[in-house]
Amino acid sequence: MEITRRNFKDCLSTVYSAIDEADFLAIDGEFSGISDGPNVSALTNGLDTPEERYTKLKKHSMDFLMFQFGLCTFKYDQTKSKYITKTFNFYIFPKPFNRTSPDIKFICQSSSIDFLASQGFDFNKVFCHGIPYLNQDEEACLREQTEERRNQHANGLGTPSFISPSSKTPANVPDEQKDFINKVVEKVELLFSADEKTLNLEPCTGFQRKLIYQMLSWKFPKGLHVETLETDKKERYIQISKVDDKERKKREQQKLEREQEELNDAVGFSRVIHAISKSGKLVVGHNMLLDVMHTIHQFYCSLPEDLQDFKEVTMCVFPRLLDTKLMASTQPFKELINNTSLAELEKQVKESPFKPPQVEAAEGFPSYDTAQEQLHEAGYDAYITGLCFISMANHLGSFLTPPKAYISAKSKLIEPFVNKLFLMRIIDIPYLNITGPDLQPKRDHVLYVTFPKEWKTSDLYQLFSAFGNIQVSWIDDTSAFVSLSQTDQVQIAMNTSRYAESYRIQTYAEYIQGKQQKEKLGQTTKSWGEDGWMKPHFSSSTTSAGFVYPRRKRSISPVQGDLGTEAAPVPDPWNNYSFPDDTVSKKIKFDELSGQANVDAVESKTSEGWLKITESSNSPDLSHVTDEKSPEGTDPDKCVDGTGTWHQTPTAPTRKGQKNKKKKTEATESTTSLFDVPEVW
Amino acid sequence: MEITRRNFKDCLSTVYSAIDEADFLAIDGEFSGISDGPNVSALTNGLDTPEERYTKLKKHSMDFLMFQFGLCTFKYDQTKSKYITKTFNFYIFPKPFNRTSPDIKFICQSSSIDFLASQGFDFNKVFCHGIPYLNQDEEACLREQTEERRNQHANGLGTPSFISPSSKTPANVPDEQKDFINKVVEKVELLFSADEKTLNLEPCTGFQRKLIYQMLSWKFPKGLHVETLETDKKERYIQISKVDDKERKKREQQKLEREQEELNDAVGFSRVIHAISKSGKLVVGHNMLLDVMHTIHQFYCSLPEDLQDFKEVTMCVFPRLLDTKLMASTQPFKELINNTSLAELEKQVKESPFKPPQVEAAEGFPSYDTAQEQLHEAGYDAYITGLCFISMANHLGSFLTPPKAYISAKSKLIEPFVNKLFLMRIIDIPYLNITGPDLQPKRDHVLYVTFPKEWKTSDLYQLFSAFGNIQVSWIDDTSAFVSLSQTDQVQIAMNTSRYAESYRIQTYAEYIQGKQQKEKLGQTTKSWGEDGWMKPHFSSSTTSAGFVYPRRKRSISPVQGDLGTEAAPVPDPWNNYSFPDDTVSKKIKFDELSGQANVDAVESKTSEGWLKITESSNSPDLSHVTDEKSPEGTDPDKCVDGTGTWHQTPTAPTRKGQKNKKKKTEATESTTSLFDVPEVW
Repeated sequence: MEITRRNFKDCLSTVYSAIDEADFLAIDGEFSGISDGPNVSALTNGLDTPEERYTKLKKHSMDFLMFQFGLCTFKYDQTKSKYITKTFNFYIFPKPFNRTSPDIKFICQSSSIDFLASQGFDFNKVFCHGIPYLNQDEEACLREQTEERRNQHANGLGTPSFISPSSKTPANVPDEQKDFINKVVEKVELLFSADEKTLNLEPCTGFQRKLIYQMLSWKFPKGLHVETLETDKKERYIQISKVDDKERKKREQQKLEREQEELNDAVGFSRVIHAISKSGKLVVGHNMLLDVMHTIHQFYCSLPEDLQDFKEVTMCVFPRLLDTKLMASTQPFKELINNTSLAELEKQVKESPFKPPQVEAAEGFPSYDTAQEQLHEAGYDAYITGLCFISMANHLGSFLTPPKAYISAKSKLIEPFVNKLFLMRIIDIPYLNITGPDLQPKRDHVLYVTFPKEWKTSDLYQLFSAFGNIQVSWIDDTSAFVSLSQTDQVQIAMNTSRYAESYRIQTYAEYIQGKQQKEKLGQTTKSWGEDGWMKPHFSSSTTSAGFVYPRRKRSISPVQGDLGTEAAPVPDPWNNYSFPDDTVSKKIKFDELSGQANVDAVESKTSEGWLKITESSNSPDLSHVTDEKSPEGTDPDKCVDGTGTWHQTPTAPTRKGQKNKKKKTEATESTTSLFDVPEVW
Repeated sequence: MEITRRNFKDCLSTVYSAIDEADFLAIDGEFSGISDGPNVSALTNGLDTPEERYTKLKKHSMDFLMFQFGLCTFKYDQTKSKYITKTFNFYIFPKPFNRTSPDIKFICQSSSIDFLASQGFDFNKVFCHGIPYLNQDEEACLREQTEERRNQHANGLGTPSFISPSSKTPANVPDEQKDFINKVVEKVELLFSADEKTLNLEPCTGFQRKLIYQMLSWKFPKGLHVETLETDKKERYIQISKVDDKERKKREQQKLEREQEELNDAVGFSRVIHAISKSGKLVVGHNMLLDVMHTIHQFYCSLPEDLQDFKEVTMCVFPRLLDTKLMASTQPFKELINNTSLAELEKQVKESPFKPPQVEAAEGFPSYDTAQEQLHEAGYDAYITGLCFISMANHLGSFLTPPKAYISAKSKLIEPFVNKLFLMRIIDIPYLNITGPDLQPKRDHVLYVTFPKEWKTSDLYQLFSAFGNIQVSWIDDTSAFVSLSQTDQVQIAMNTSRYAESYRIQTYAEYIQGKQQKEKLGQTTKSWGEDGWMKPHFSSSTTSAGFVYPRRKRSISPVQGDLGTEAAPVPDPWNNYSFPDDTVSKKIKFDELSGQANVDAVESKTSEGWLKITESSNSPDLSHVTDEKSPEGTDPDKCVDGTGTWHQTPTAPTRKGQKNKKKKTEATESTTSLFDVPEVW
């Protein structure tokens, strides 16, 4: 269902009830651009920390506009054994509410605009009929203004700050306005003796209107209703009506109601986000970090400086999030899915071992044909994101004994994937953990290299040719991180580079230290907070495991013990990267023998097609896992409202009645694990 | 005629010939926004210097996109005694030419977008079918790239920088690619024995394509044509064709031509601007400074830092400009025209004493009905700008003896208005003088006042209530210029303020001095150049005249002598300002007696409706002026191609044959002149 400014108010109750009745929601946004840096690659570095990435996205992406918001609600119908969907496609535009409301500026990126144009995006719908919105500060400010105006009105005409005791007399009409004002007074006097009830004055300046209000309030304290209206040409004029006290009160009541309605209109699309937020329901998105950031930024508040604060705000707005891209690139899915882009994922989850999701559009809602792709329409993208979630969630049910065909959005089985947002193109941190501390990979195999700006990736490959496979993560024109495959080579590289003149090598630890010192010297207020980097607790208790979970608030059975020790971080990272196209050629691998080979530094400009991580490591095997009773479940033999209460076989030891208990099955953990999402197996 | 990417190439010759045959051109641009400051008012201060204004516009306005360009060509038809018009409405969008071309980001201002939307602007036409463009640097860069690629191709396949001597052997195919490459070689070998002439490989990565090129070039140095093509989905694949030498050369020639054409396509709309520029014809615009700046910025080069450099660039791109807003607000028009907004001006020049311009749309071109306003479509705005120019120019002919009904675009009569661009909302400098130094008003009646940020205009009026009428020009929240009506009051104001605590007063001279010192200390490179401010020559030779013309390169008969001495700068500036609406209420005048009155600081957001200057001063009277022979005129009894050669009566002394001579008539110069555009009367 397409929703613009024209039908928004009429559709709002439909939207509300769809959210209310849904089991889960899927969302997607379309933006006027991705990155305002010189190119999208500059925005990301494969070894960004979550803090750095958040700061970059906040700085370089929030000036774009989310101008289309897709919402698809999914409600499970027990009798039909399928989901009933309602898809909404909202067009959004920050039309200034009135002349004092903020005049939003946003950036458009021509490649993004051109891409959307090629997909048939209707910009006129956005710019001509987009639904306005306000964030919470703007809304509060506007409500305050309205309240103030109302109080002023209750105390008499005009604005108190304009009215001094003396202004109640006509003395302060400037000489050159006296003629004008006198003529108005004459007209009003005629109105009293005339049949007409209403007099429209000619449009005039704000100053003149002020004088008119003052004069009429002084000269005719009763019997008149005076109001400023606008012509079609946006010229403001005064309308004067004869009224008795009852009529006057009625009119004022009407005006009050009108103001209230205008205010709600101005809050506009934000009301939908408020409803989603208040519902507390699972909100599914695909690669949704930017969607979440934009949603908060546009409809709630400016994004906080600090990542931790952002996480807290996010939890207030979206208490339960699930990112299908993160889910698809995590065990047990990552071995089944070799391309986690939304379009490809949607195709793959229709095929074995997945089961095609059973869905049906609700009456009155258009049904999408996934064979005819309508990608990059936010509503459609939200819809297929939901489909991907359903298939993947249900697939988890096949690991149960006996298998379950339907896994609800409230099932404990999906808990490991909740509130973890996919981090694009970070080599060793797959997700942003919204409800806890982020993963802190050891980066002691990483070197920080500075060099002349003429250097290309090939020069770095040549420089490190003795060290076997390396991985280059560009920082800027004259520096890059180089990851060696063996940590013990770091010292050799440092030693050999000691007398180099054209380049300089530091360990990652030295680099971070230097950066921190620079920040201290630069008096920047940014502090590397408790969740930050390179703190003393960094290496505490965790030997050489690939990851440590510092300040692990929620972890009951930490998985560090399962991590391999020898092969860390990755035996041969190169075999684990796919290069979907040459837009990432800067990071391409070369045979060590051909040091001269070089690659064009073509930069990626689209959000899809970015480097996709398909880790070689294994996560705990899911086979033989049984789902715990969901909190709502009461009778194991009955399926109640889709909350996931199932038959359980005696072969798998389960303890009924014990809630929120974590357990681990006999998974095969012979190799390193790049990351471990599960906390509840 | 609407021109988009779709019909641009087909229409280009029509555009070229319209420019070639025209007597003058009118242009207009539509932008995605006006100012990226908090509001448009912040961009302007009534006492900006031209340098300051240029710097502000460059900083705050150039990130918007000019996405519609209107061009209307006017060719005078002697036999019909009317102008034949051709109107073009170009939609412009910086669609990235290829994957290495710049990815332009531009700002949209929601108020501007909303305004255009309300006027029925078609954003889809811009974003989906806008004509691309390159500035000269980008074009040069692209031509270089193409040239380089061509040379590389001439030297063999592949890119030289990628190819080392060893790469001519297949040795440097990485192990993991060997299978892939061997399969390609097998396929090609099959192609040689097959009937098919052409083989399309599957899409693959840039690195793989590079390997294929190398391998085929090495293995099959002759008989193959190898080319990279793109699928509909923008995936790149290699096409291999069997060719003999002749066929191969033919294909390469075709490719060369295709590249050349693609290059021209990329230069796109800039070619139209180049043609306008090369024609050297009079280019008319209305309030055209931003149009000129955007045109140069988008289609020529980044705007220079320095105003003087900008003037020089402007003269290269547009050697002859005329701003109808400046013309309309200058003698002899300013007394006839009380609203110089384009729409109002167009209405007024149809009425007496003006004569409606006689125009006709050329065959095949749509004719506009000015009664049905299509304002803010760039083509229409350009068209009516041209109409305004025609009426005003012809009106000048009425001052000739005998009067002339038609004044050509080359007439000396319009010379005083040429290359002077209207400066919006500067109190005492009406225009930017592109071909010479700018006016330098004395500002010794101006005070620089700093105060707490709570202060409003009314507080300033109250503070200066003893000094009669004042004018306030806000700089920021805590400072403003206050212009007193009498220069000799400055010292009194300074004295009385000596012990003030909440505010501080400086003379304008002190303020400028302090600013210069601050700039020196701040190590900013910006220098107050020769045309700048407050130089020693500022008061040289000019007594107390309102203006001085420093470095007056072209002035032959300086008009300083005609300026009054007593009433400078303006006796009562307030009566000389019109307030078309309350958006300028901040600057509104109050009766001195009611110091408490206050006004909402509502900011203007549209380009029209800004403070309009209608100076009270007189310029030299135009009556009895005769037009000189235009350079092209030969026979005074014959009208040759509309260049303005006319009958001249003996009553007015003219000297035939003398070209470019300036002269002055017996004008009445009894009062001060705020500015004097004429140099040739």
